[in-house]
Amino acid sequence: MSAGKGLFISFEGIDGSGKSTQARRLAETLRAEGHEVVLTREPGGSPGAEEIRRLVLEGEADRWSAETELLLFTAARRDHLERTIRPALARGALVICDRYVDSTRVYQGVTRGDLRATVDALHELVIGQDPDLTLLIDIDPQEGLSRAVARAGGEQRFEDMGLAMQALMRGAFLDLAATAPQRFRVIDGAGDADTVAGRVRAALG
Amino acid sequence: MSAGKGLFISFEGIDGSGKSTQARRLAETLRAEGHEVVLTREPGGSPGAEEIRRLVLEGEADRWSAETELLLFTAARRDHLERTIRPALARGALVICDRYVDSTRVYQGVTRGDLRATVDALHELVIGQDPDLTLLIDIDPQEGLSRAVARAGGEQRFEDMGLAMQALMRGAFLDLAATAPQRFRVIDGAGDADTVAGRVRAALG
Repeated sequence: MSAGKGLFISFEGIDGSGKSTQARRLAETLRAEGHEVVLTREPGGSPGAEEIRRLVLEGEADRWSAETELLLFTAARRDHLERTIRPALARGALVICDRYVDSTRVYQGVTRGDLRATVDALHELVIGQDPDLTLLIDIDPQEGLSRAVARAGGEQRFEDMGLAMQALMRGAFLDLAATAPQRFRVIDGAGDADTVAGRVRAALG
Repeated sequence: MSAGKGLFISFEGIDGSGKSTQARRLAETLRAEGHEVVLTREPGGSPGAEEIRRLVLEGEADRWSAETELLLFTAARRDHLERTIRPALARGALVICDRYVDSTRVYQGVTRGDLRATVDALHELVIGQDPDLTLLIDIDPQEGLSRAVARAGGEQRFEDMGLAMQALMRGAFLDLAATAPQRFRVIDGAGDADTVAGRVRAALG
Protein backbone atom coordinates (compact mmCIF):
# COMPACT_ATOMS: atom_id res chain seq x y z
CA MET A 1 0.00 0.00 0.00
CA SER A 2 1.19 3.49 -0.85
CA ALA A 3 0.79 6.24 1.75
CA GLY A 4 -1.73 8.99 1.02
CA LYS A 5 -4.07 6.88 -1.08
CA GLY A 6 -7.48 6.29 0.45
CA LEU A 7 -8.50 2.66 0.78
CA PHE A 8 -11.71 1.19 2.14
CA ILE A 9 -11.30 -2.19 3.88
CA SER A 10 -14.16 -4.09 5.50
CA PHE A 11 -13.93 -7.03 7.88
CA GLU A 12 -16.61 -9.68 7.78
CA GLY A 13 -17.27 -13.00 9.44
CA ILE A 14 -19.61 -14.86 11.75
CA ASP A 15 -19.94 -13.98 15.43
CA GLY A 16 -16.85 -15.07 17.34
CA SER A 17 -14.71 -15.13 14.20
CA GLY A 18 -12.38 -12.53 15.68
CA LYS A 19 -13.09 -9.92 13.00
CA SER A 20 -13.42 -7.02 15.48
CA THR A 21 -10.13 -7.95 17.14
CA GLN A 22 -8.45 -8.27 13.75
CA ALA A 23 -9.88 -4.96 12.52
CA ARG A 24 -8.40 -3.24 15.58
CA ARG A 25 -5.08 -5.06 15.21
CA LEU A 26 -4.80 -4.10 11.56
CA ALA A 27 -5.57 -0.48 12.39
CA GLU A 28 -2.76 -0.49 14.97
CA THR A 29 -0.34 -2.12 12.53
CA LEU A 30 -1.08 0.32 9.72
CA ARG A 31 -0.85 3.32 12.04
CA ALA A 32 2.55 2.08 13.19
CA GLU A 33 3.50 1.97 9.50
CA GLY A 34 2.62 5.67 9.24
CA HIS A 35 -0.82 5.59 7.66
CA GLU A 36 -3.81 7.61 8.81
CA VAL A 37 -6.38 4.97 9.73
CA VAL A 38 -10.06 5.46 10.54
CA LEU A 39 -11.36 2.41 12.42
CA THR A 40 -15.14 2.25 12.33
CA ARG A 41 -17.99 -0.25 12.53
CA GLU A 42 -21.52 -1.01 11.44
CA PRO A 43 -24.25 -0.67 12.33
CA GLY A 44 -23.16 2.77 13.51
CA GLY A 45 -19.90 4.56 12.79
CA SER A 46 -21.18 8.15 12.79
CA PRO A 47 -23.19 10.02 15.43
CA GLY A 48 -26.41 9.79 13.42
CA ALA A 49 -25.88 6.14 12.51
CA GLU A 50 -25.21 5.30 16.16
CA GLU A 51 -28.56 6.87 17.05
CA ILE A 52 -30.27 4.76 14.40
CA ARG A 53 -28.42 1.71 15.71
CA ARG A 54 -29.82 2.34 19.19
CA LEU A 55 -33.31 2.80 17.76
CA VAL A 56 -33.07 -0.59 16.04
CA LEU A 57 -31.29 -2.65 18.70
CA GLU A 58 -32.99 -1.38 21.85
CA GLY A 59 -36.49 -2.45 22.79
CA GLU A 60 -38.39 -5.60 21.90
CA ALA A 61 -36.89 -7.98 19.33
CA ASP A 62 -40.04 -7.87 17.17
CA ARG A 63 -40.39 -4.13 17.43
CA TRP A 64 -39.45 -3.69 13.77
CA SER A 65 -40.19 -5.93 10.83
CA ALA A 66 -37.28 -7.22 8.77
CA GLU A 67 -38.18 -4.72 6.04
CA THR A 68 -38.24 -1.71 8.37
CA GLU A 69 -35.04 -2.82 10.05
CA LEU A 70 -33.36 -3.15 6.66
CA LEU A 71 -34.40 0.41 5.77
CA LEU A 72 -33.17 1.75 9.11
CA PHE A 73 -29.80 0.01 8.74
CA THR A 74 -29.53 1.32 5.18
CA ALA A 75 -30.23 4.85 6.47
CA ALA A 76 -27.51 4.33 9.08
CA ARG A 77 -25.11 3.11 6.37
CA ARG A 78 -25.82 6.15 4.22
CA ASP A 79 -25.07 8.48 7.14
CA HIS A 80 -21.93 6.53 8.03
CA LEU A 81 -20.77 6.69 4.41
CA GLU A 82 -21.37 10.44 4.12
CA ARG A 83 -20.09 11.56 7.49
CA THR A 84 -17.25 9.13 8.21
CA ILE A 85 -16.16 6.92 5.32
CA ARG A 86 -16.14 9.27 2.32
CA PRO A 87 -14.51 12.23 4.10
CA ALA A 88 -11.75 9.90 5.35
CA LEU A 89 -11.16 8.40 1.91
CA ALA A 90 -11.16 11.89 0.38
CA ARG A 91 -8.25 12.97 2.56
CA GLY A 92 -6.34 9.80 1.73
CA ALA A 93 -6.95 7.84 4.94
CA LEU A 94 -7.33 4.10 5.24
CA VAL A 95 -10.82 3.18 6.42
CA ILE A 96 -11.21 -0.11 8.28
CA CYS A 97 -14.82 -1.03 8.91
CA ASP A 98 -16.01 -3.85 11.17
CA ARG A 99 -18.98 -5.19 9.16
CA TYR A 100 -20.51 -3.49 6.13
CA VAL A 101 -23.04 -4.42 3.46
CA ASP A 102 -21.93 -8.06 3.22
CA SER A 103 -23.14 -8.65 6.77
CA THR A 104 -26.55 -7.35 5.71
CA ARG A 105 -26.52 -9.56 2.61
CA VAL A 106 -25.63 -12.66 4.61
CA TYR A 107 -27.97 -11.98 7.52
CA GLN A 108 -30.98 -11.27 5.29
CA GLY A 109 -30.05 -14.07 2.92
CA VAL A 110 -30.12 -16.60 5.75
CA THR A 111 -33.05 -15.27 7.78
CA ARG A 112 -35.25 -13.72 5.09
CA GLY A 113 -34.15 -15.05 1.74
CA ASP A 114 -37.04 -13.25 0.03
CA LEU A 115 -35.40 -9.95 0.99
CA ARG A 116 -31.98 -10.81 -0.41
CA ALA A 117 -32.61 -9.11 -3.77
CA THR A 118 -34.02 -6.07 -1.96
CA VAL A 119 -30.75 -5.70 -0.04
CA ASP A 120 -28.83 -5.49 -3.32
CA ALA A 121 -31.36 -3.16 -4.92
CA LEU A 122 -31.24 -0.78 -1.92
CA HIS A 123 -27.45 -0.88 -1.90
CA GLU A 124 -27.30 0.03 -5.58
CA LEU A 125 -30.00 2.70 -5.25
CA VAL A 126 -28.81 4.66 -2.21
CA ILE A 127 -25.37 3.45 -1.09
CA GLY A 128 -23.40 2.61 -4.21
CA GLN A 129 -20.03 2.35 -2.46
CA ASP A 130 -18.36 -1.04 -2.04
CA PRO A 131 -15.17 -1.61 -0.05
CA ASP A 132 -11.97 -1.83 -2.08
CA LEU A 133 -11.10 -4.94 -0.12
CA THR A 134 -13.12 -7.24 2.14
CA LEU A 135 -11.33 -9.53 4.58
CA LEU A 136 -13.51 -12.47 5.51
CA ILE A 137 -12.27 -14.06 8.72
CA ASP A 138 -13.36 -17.65 8.28
CA ILE A 139 -13.71 -19.88 11.29
CA ASP A 140 -15.27 -23.17 12.27
CA PRO A 141 -18.86 -22.42 13.33
CA GLN A 142 -18.51 -24.34 16.61
CA GLU A 143 -15.38 -22.43 17.56
CA GLY A 144 -17.04 -19.12 16.65
CA LEU A 145 -20.06 -19.96 18.75
CA SER A 146 -17.94 -20.99 21.74
CA ARG A 147 -15.99 -17.71 21.56
CA ALA A 148 -19.15 -15.64 21.15
CA VAL A 149 -20.85 -17.30 24.10
CA ALA A 150 -17.72 -17.01 26.26
CA ARG A 151 -17.58 -13.30 25.51
CA ALA A 152 -21.00 -12.96 27.19
CA GLY A 153 -22.82 -9.71 27.93
CA GLY A 154 -23.39 -6.92 25.42
CA GLU A 155 -25.86 -7.30 22.61
CA GLN A 156 -26.86 -10.95 22.61
CA ARG A 157 -29.38 -10.51 19.84
CA PHE A 158 -27.31 -11.71 16.89
CA GLU A 159 -25.32 -14.07 19.10
CA ASP A 160 -28.16 -16.29 20.29
CA MET A 161 -28.89 -18.15 17.13
CA GLY A 162 -26.98 -21.32 17.78
CA LEU A 163 -24.73 -23.57 15.80
CA ALA A 164 -27.03 -24.24 12.86
CA MET A 165 -27.34 -20.52 12.20
CA GLN A 166 -23.59 -20.02 12.54
CA ALA A 167 -23.00 -22.75 9.98
CA LEU A 168 -25.54 -21.27 7.58
CA MET A 169 -24.01 -17.83 7.89
CA ARG A 170 -20.49 -19.13 7.39
CA GLY A 171 -21.61 -20.85 4.20
CA ALA A 172 -23.34 -17.69 3.01
CA PHE A 173 -20.19 -15.61 3.60
CA LEU A 174 -18.08 -18.09 1.66
CA ASP A 175 -20.61 -18.16 -1.19
CA LEU A 176 -20.61 -14.38 -1.31
CA ALA A 177 -16.81 -14.26 -1.35
CA ALA A 178 -16.82 -16.64 -4.29
CA THR A 179 -19.03 -14.28 -6.29
CA ALA A 180 -16.58 -11.36 -5.84
CA PRO A 181 -13.09 -12.86 -5.71
CA GLN A 182 -11.44 -9.57 -6.71
CA ARG A 183 -12.78 -7.83 -3.62
CA PHE A 184 -12.69 -10.64 -1.05
CA ARG A 185 -9.77 -12.28 0.70
CA VAL A 186 -10.74 -15.28 2.83
CA ILE A 187 -8.49 -15.42 5.91
CA ASP A 188 -8.15 -18.55 8.02
CA GLY A 189 -9.34 -17.43 11.48
CA ALA A 190 -8.02 -20.48 13.38
CA GLY A 191 -5.25 -19.99 15.91
CA ASP A 192 -4.31 -17.14 18.22
CA ALA A 193 -4.83 -13.49 17.42
CA ASP A 194 -1.17 -12.87 16.55
CA THR A 195 -1.17 -15.69 14.02
CA VAL A 196 -4.36 -14.45 12.36
CA ALA A 197 -3.09 -10.85 12.41
CA GLY A 198 -0.05 -11.99 10.49
CA ARG A 199 -2.28 -13.61 7.85
CA VAL A 200 -4.37 -10.45 7.61
CA ARG A 201 -1.37 -8.18 7.12
CA ALA A 202 0.06 -10.53 4.51
CA ALA A 203 -3.23 -10.50 2.60
CA LEU A 204 -2.94 -6.73 2.09
CA GLY A 205 0.30 -7.06 0.16
CA MET B 1 -69.10 3.77 -0.37
CA SER B 2 -70.25 0.44 0.93
CA ALA B 3 -69.79 -0.34 4.62
CA GLY B 4 -67.28 -3.02 5.54
CA LYS B 5 -64.99 -2.51 2.57
CA GLY B 6 -61.55 -1.19 3.40
CA LEU B 7 -60.54 1.99 1.61
CA PHE B 8 -57.31 3.93 1.84
CA ILE B 9 -57.69 7.70 1.38
CA SER B 10 -54.82 10.17 1.58
CA PHE B 11 -55.01 13.94 1.89
CA GLU B 12 -52.33 16.03 0.25
CA GLY B 13 -51.67 19.72 -0.25
CA ILE B 14 -49.27 22.53 0.55
CA ASP B 15 -48.87 23.88 4.08
CA GLY B 16 -51.92 25.88 5.11
CA SER B 17 -54.12 24.17 2.51
CA GLY B 18 -56.41 22.89 5.24
CA LYS B 19 -55.74 19.21 4.50
CA SER B 20 -55.35 18.21 8.17
CA THR B 21 -58.61 19.95 9.09
CA GLN B 22 -60.34 18.31 6.14
CA ALA B 23 -58.92 14.88 6.96
CA ARG B 24 -60.33 15.21 10.49
CA ARG B 25 -63.67 16.52 9.23
CA LEU B 26 -64.02 13.67 6.75
CA ALA B 27 -63.21 11.15 9.48
CA GLU B 28 -65.99 12.64 11.65
CA THR B 29 -68.47 12.62 8.78
CA LEU B 30 -67.77 9.03 7.82
CA ARG B 31 -67.93 7.85 11.43
CA ALA B 32 -71.30 9.56 11.74
CA GLU B 33 -72.35 7.57 8.66
CA GLY B 34 -71.47 4.36 10.51
CA HIS B 35 -68.04 3.51 9.09
CA GLU B 36 -65.03 2.47 11.12
CA VAL B 37 -62.45 5.14 10.36
CA VAL B 38 -58.75 5.17 11.23
CA LEU B 39 -57.42 8.74 11.04
CA THR B 40 -53.67 8.79 10.77
CA ARG B 41 -50.81 10.92 9.47
CA GLU B 42 -47.30 10.92 8.06
CA PRO B 43 -44.55 11.11 8.93
CA GLY B 44 -45.62 8.95 11.87
CA GLY B 45 -48.87 7.09 12.36
CA SER B 46 -47.57 4.12 14.35
CA PRO B 47 -45.48 4.05 17.55
CA GLY B 48 -42.31 3.07 15.68
CA ALA B 49 -42.88 5.57 12.89
CA GLU B 50 -43.47 8.34 15.43
CA GLU B 51 -40.09 7.51 16.98
CA ILE B 52 -38.45 7.75 13.58
CA ARG B 53 -40.30 11.02 12.97
CA ARG B 54 -38.82 12.45 16.16
CA LEU B 55 -35.36 11.24 15.18
CA VAL B 56 -35.67 13.07 11.85
CA LEU B 57 -37.39 16.27 12.92
CA GLU B 58 -35.61 17.01 16.20
CA GLY B 59 -32.09 18.39 16.31
CA GLU B 60 -30.25 20.48 13.75
CA ALA B 61 -31.81 21.01 10.33
CA ASP B 62 -28.73 19.67 8.53
CA ARG B 63 -28.33 16.71 10.84
CA TRP B 64 -29.34 14.29 8.09
CA SER B 65 -28.67 14.48 4.37
CA ALA B 66 -31.64 14.40 2.01
CA GLU B 67 -30.79 10.78 1.15
CA THR B 68 -30.66 9.61 4.77
CA GLU B 69 -33.83 11.52 5.61
CA LEU B 70 -35.58 9.87 2.67
CA LEU B 71 -34.53 6.42 3.92
CA LEU B 72 -35.69 7.22 7.45
CA PHE B 73 -39.06 8.47 6.24
CA THR B 74 -39.40 5.38 4.05
CA ALA B 75 -38.66 3.19 7.09
CA ALA B 76 -41.34 5.11 9.00
CA ARG B 77 -43.79 4.61 6.13
CA ARG B 78 -43.11 0.88 6.06
CA ASP B 79 -43.78 0.62 9.81
CA HIS B 80 -46.92 2.75 9.50
CA LEU B 81 -48.15 0.59 6.63
CA GLU B 82 -47.55 -2.68 8.50
CA ARG B 83 -48.75 -1.68 11.94
CA THR B 84 -51.58 0.75 11.22
CA ILE B 85 -52.76 0.96 7.61
CA ARG B 86 -52.84 -2.67 6.45
CA PRO B 87 -54.42 -4.09 9.64
CA ALA B 88 -57.15 -1.44 9.42
CA LEU B 89 -57.81 -2.15 5.74
CA ALA B 90 -57.83 -5.89 6.44
CA ARG B 91 -60.70 -5.52 8.91
CA GLY B 92 -62.64 -3.36 6.48
CA ALA B 93 -61.96 0.06 8.01
CA LEU B 94 -61.58 3.32 6.11
CA VAL B 95 -58.08 4.72 6.52
CA ILE B 96 -57.68 8.48 6.19
CA CYS B 97 -54.06 9.55 6.11
CA ASP B 98 -52.84 13.15 6.36
CA ARG B 99 -49.91 13.08 3.87
CA TYR B 100 -48.44 9.96 2.31
CA VAL B 101 -45.98 9.19 -0.48
CA ASP B 102 -47.11 12.08 -2.72
CA SER B 103 -45.82 14.56 -0.13
CA THR B 104 -42.44 12.86 -0.35
CA ARG B 105 -42.54 12.93 -4.16
CA VAL B 106 -43.40 16.63 -4.24
CA TYR B 107 -41.01 17.67 -1.49
CA GLN B 108 -38.04 15.82 -2.99
CA GLY B 109 -39.05 16.79 -6.51
CA VAL B 110 -38.93 20.49 -5.61
CA THR B 111 -35.95 20.52 -3.24
CA ARG B 112 -33.80 17.69 -4.64
CA GLY B 113 -34.98 16.94 -8.15
CA ASP B 114 -32.13 14.45 -8.60
CA LEU B 115 -33.72 12.27 -5.90
CA ARG B 116 -37.18 12.21 -7.49
CA ALA B 117 -36.61 8.92 -9.30
CA THR B 118 -35.13 7.41 -6.12
CA VAL B 119 -38.36 8.22 -4.26
CA ASP B 120 -40.35 6.21 -6.79
CA ALA B 121 -37.84 3.36 -6.85
CA LEU B 122 -37.87 3.09 -3.04
CA HIS B 123 -41.66 3.20 -3.00
CA GLU B 124 -41.88 0.39 -5.51
CA LEU B 125 -39.18 -1.64 -3.79
CA VAL B 126 -40.28 -1.56 -0.16
CA ILE B 127 -43.70 0.11 0.17
CA GLY B 128 -45.76 -0.94 -2.84
CA GLN B 129 -49.08 0.29 -1.47
CA ASP B 130 -50.76 3.33 -3.00
CA PRO B 131 -53.90 4.97 -1.63
CA ASP B 132 -57.15 4.04 -3.35
CA LEU B 133 -57.99 7.72 -3.47
CA THR B 134 -55.93 10.87 -2.94
CA LEU B 135 -57.68 14.15 -2.20
CA LEU B 136 -55.48 17.08 -3.14
CA ILE B 137 -56.68 20.22 -1.35
CA ASP B 138 -55.61 22.92 -3.77
CA ILE B 139 -55.20 26.46 -2.53
CA ASP B 140 -53.62 29.73 -3.64
CA PRO B 141 -50.00 29.65 -2.39
CA GLN B 142 -50.28 33.10 -0.77
CA GLU B 143 -53.39 32.09 1.17
CA GLY B 144 -51.75 28.83 2.25
CA LEU B 145 -48.68 30.68 3.44
CA SER B 146 -50.75 33.23 5.37
CA ARG B 147 -52.69 30.46 7.11
CA ALA B 148 -49.52 28.49 7.88
CA VAL B 149 -47.76 31.51 9.35
CA ALA B 150 -50.86 32.53 11.35
CA ARG B 151 -51.04 29.04 12.83
CA ALA B 152 -47.60 29.64 14.38
CA GLY B 153 -45.76 27.33 16.79
CA GLY B 154 -45.21 23.59 16.20
CA GLU B 155 -42.72 22.32 13.67
CA GLN B 156 -41.76 25.33 11.62
CA ARG B 157 -39.27 23.45 9.54
CA PHE B 158 -41.39 22.76 6.46
CA GLU B 159 -43.39 25.94 6.96
CA ASP B 160 -40.56 28.45 6.64
CA MET B 161 -39.88 28.20 2.97
CA GLY B 162 -41.81 31.20 1.74
CA LEU B 163 -44.11 31.97 -1.13
CA ALA B 164 -41.87 30.84 -3.98
CA MET B 165 -41.57 27.38 -2.43
CA GLN B 166 -45.30 27.20 -1.78
CA ALA B 167 -45.96 28.01 -5.43
CA LEU B 168 -43.46 25.39 -6.63
CA MET B 169 -44.98 22.75 -4.41
CA ARG B 170 -48.52 23.58 -5.49
CA GLY B 171 -47.46 23.20 -9.11
CA ALA B 172 -45.75 19.89 -8.35
CA PHE B 173 -48.86 18.53 -6.61
CA LEU B 174 -51.04 19.51 -9.57
CA ASP B 175 -48.57 17.95 -12.02
CA LEU B 176 -48.55 14.75 -9.98
CA ALA B 177 -52.36 14.67 -9.87
CA ALA B 178 -52.43 14.99 -13.64
CA THR B 179 -50.26 11.88 -14.00
CA ALA B 180 -52.68 9.74 -11.94
CA PRO B 181 -56.19 11.10 -12.60
CA GLN B 182 -57.82 7.82 -11.53
CA ARG B 183 -56.41 8.11 -8.03
CA PHE B 184 -56.44 11.89 -7.48
CA ARG B 185 -59.34 14.26 -6.90
CA VAL B 186 -58.34 17.92 -6.86
CA ILE B 187 -60.51 19.80 -4.36
CA ASP B 188 -60.82 23.58 -4.40
CA GLY B 189 -59.58 24.60 -0.93
CA ALA B 190 -60.86 28.20 -1.04
CA GLY B 191 -63.59 29.26 1.38
CA ASP B 192 -64.45 28.20 4.91
CA ALA B 193 -63.91 24.71 6.30
CA ASP B 194 -67.61 23.77 6.00
CA THR B 195 -67.66 24.66 2.33
CA VAL B 196 -64.51 22.67 1.59
CA ALA B 197 -65.75 19.72 3.69
CA GLY B 198 -68.87 19.63 1.50
CA ARG B 199 -66.68 19.45 -1.60
CA VAL B 200 -64.57 16.68 -0.07
CA ARG B 201 -67.57 14.56 0.86
CA ALA B 202 -69.08 15.05 -2.60
CA ALA B 203 -65.83 13.91 -4.22
CA LEU B 204 -66.13 10.53 -2.50
CA GLY B 205 -69.41 9.74 -4.24
